[in-house]
Amino acid sequence: MLTQRTAMSGEHSLIARYFRPLATDAGALGLIDDAAYLRCDDSDLVVTTDAIVEGVHFLPDDPPAGIARKALRVNLSDLAAKGAVPAGFVLTLALRTVDADWLTPFAGALGEDAASFGCPLLGGDTVSTPGPLMISITAFGRVPKGRMVRRDGARVGDTVMVTGSIGDAALGLDVLTRGVEAGDEAARNYLVGRYREPRPRSALAIAVRDHASAAMDVSDGLAGDLAKLCAASGVSAIVEATRVPLSAPARGIVDAGRAPLDRLLTGGDDYEILFTIAENQSEAFMRMAEQAGIAPTAIGTIVEGSVAPRFVDDRGQPMTLSSTAYSHF
Amino acid sequence: MLTQRTAMSGEHSLIARYFRPLATDAGALGLIDDAAYLRCDDSDLVVTTDAIVEGVHFLPDDPPAGIARKALRVNLSDLAAKGAVPAGFVLTLALRTVDADWLTPFAGALGEDAASFGCPLLGGDTVSTPGPLMISITAFGRVPKGRMVRRDGARVGDTVMVTGSIGDAALGLDVLTRGVEAGDEAARNYLVGRYREPRPRSALAIAVRDHASAAMDVSDGLAGDLAKLCAASGVSAIVEATRVPLSAPARGIVDAGRAPLDRLLTGGDDYEILFTIAENQSEAFMRMAEQAGIAPTAIGTIVEGSVAPRFVDDRGQPMTLSSTAYSHF
Repeated sequence: MLTQRTAMSGEHSLIARYFRPLATDAGALGLIDDAAYLRCDDSDLVVTTDAIVEGVHFLPDDPPAGIARKALRVNLSDLAAKGAVPAGFVLTLALRTVDADWLTPFAGALGEDAASFGCPLLGGDTVSTPGPLMISITAFGRVPKGRMVRRDGARVGDTVMVTGSIGDAALGLDVLTRGVEAGDEAARNYLVGRYREPRPRSALAIAVRDHASAAMDVSDGLAGDLAKLCAASGVSAIVEATRVPLSAPARGIVDAGRAPLDRLLTGGDDYEILFTIAENQSEAFMRMAEQAGIAPTAIGTIVEGSVAPRFVDDRGQPMTLSSTAYSHF
Repeated sequence: MLTQRTAMSGEHSLIARYFRPLATDAGALGLIDDAAYLRCDDSDLVVTTDAIVEGVHFLPDDPPAGIARKALRVNLSDLAAKGAVPAGFVLTLALRTVDADWLTPFAGALGEDAASFGCPLLGGDTVSTPGPLMISITAFGRVPKGRMVRRDGARVGDTVMVTGSIGDAALGLDVLTRGVEAGDEAARNYLVGRYREPRPRSALAIAVRDHASAAMDVSDGLAGDLAKLCAASGVSAIVEATRVPLSAPARGIVDAGRAPLDRLLTGGDDYEILFTIAENQSEAFMRMAEQAGIAPTAIGTIVEGSVAPRFVDDRGQPMTLSSTAYSHF
């Protein structure tokens, strides 16, 4: 450690004050130990990790509650897409200063989400940084042994499906940063909300686990993420672009020519589940989805080949997409 | 994401090129999936997380291989102190740029350590940051169900023990940054090495698990960490400062009056295991420690009380320590 050593209490009381209430799992040991334990019994543990950085994934004056929700939910979205039931998470927080006005709403919102998604805090590390805030979360979920839904199980003939609507978050970002007109205030709020606060499809995790042949969450754009799923599975796909589900506000923007459909198909931050399903699993899956209150949409078919998935327009003509995925560098 | 979206490949090829060789566990799925799985069978999974930040925990021009070893080993040290056998880790890397001259030795050293400690890479996230480099690692270990060694099990009459030698890393830092004279070149190299590259006591994990009543690793200074262990256990302790094991180079510096003993007892980064052991477990423990090639030292006794542990000097007089723990804020 190169910083000055000072008397005990800073980190200790920071954890006690803000984060101990989130440590509701027995294995977290009230955050007083160096480590937590996770009971597995006959489950496999699914592990996923995602970090967000100030100035890159969120803005310095974004509300701390929203940052907390985003940091946890991007991980919960991964767990849902893998068919896993949340088990807990650990948090690394790199802070410039200890600011109660920031930490109180941050920890409060994180605790609310931890409770509503059944994913308690197990432990963490707080470090001081001279640079931007950074929040790194590693989240855990459980699946029965050998049952994590992978990217590489798509087979020729499977239907390609997606939950919710695609492109809202990319348009929300464009509304915020590029002056794109949303239409009215309600449309604007909806799209910006979709960008700021992912809604992980946790309610669909069991249905995906029991019936999907492959799945992943859509975080880097539908086109690019489907390309990754197909590459992992050794297949290709044909997607009818007109069947890709759009929200009413997104439809309004596309119809008015204020954003190309391309932008929605390649934008990121959707946090929907993209998955493939064999014909004989479809009926049972749709029944479970209906019970979960989620109506996924069939958008295409898995086909043979090693080329990137083809998106065809309403006349059956192949579309040329401008980019296929967000890259972090 | 607020950065410009560019064509796929940056992050994807960074992971493939530098980190896929480290992903030797089946559950890592070659890093092509969104998540990894960990098979637990009848074990509990022990989870620990520690982050290091450029300019805070390491210097910008520190060799990348050493940074990699430090980032992983501080976590392995936690696992060893909890009695856990390493199972794998996930890595979050916040980088300003993709620099092969830095990443190649970083990934190489990380891979060597992952192999020698039996702790393969399971997954990770790379994010771009305008700020300092940051490396956050969450590591996993296995213990039989219910057998993680906690901080809160110390009982009155237990012996307080510590592995290795105490204070070397703090003196190594003083040699580097405060011009403290080490003695000769060999002493200097030894102390600086102890600061730069922790040597987790993984070989002692099973003995600690089977025989210690409480344990933690010494990362924030012996005095402060023992205070935490005692507080968690609801006890106090008396430590004979003359019995605290010092290396020959550290002994030389203290005897020459170039650093006070206080500095060694309250400095950090030792990454030794501090533990307590009941009398009836002592013989079996020492036999296992000998087999592991580690000779722990008895330094004191657990006593009743809720005050901070007392350190007594060679005349039995209580010492006043200047500070009790490193604080991150």
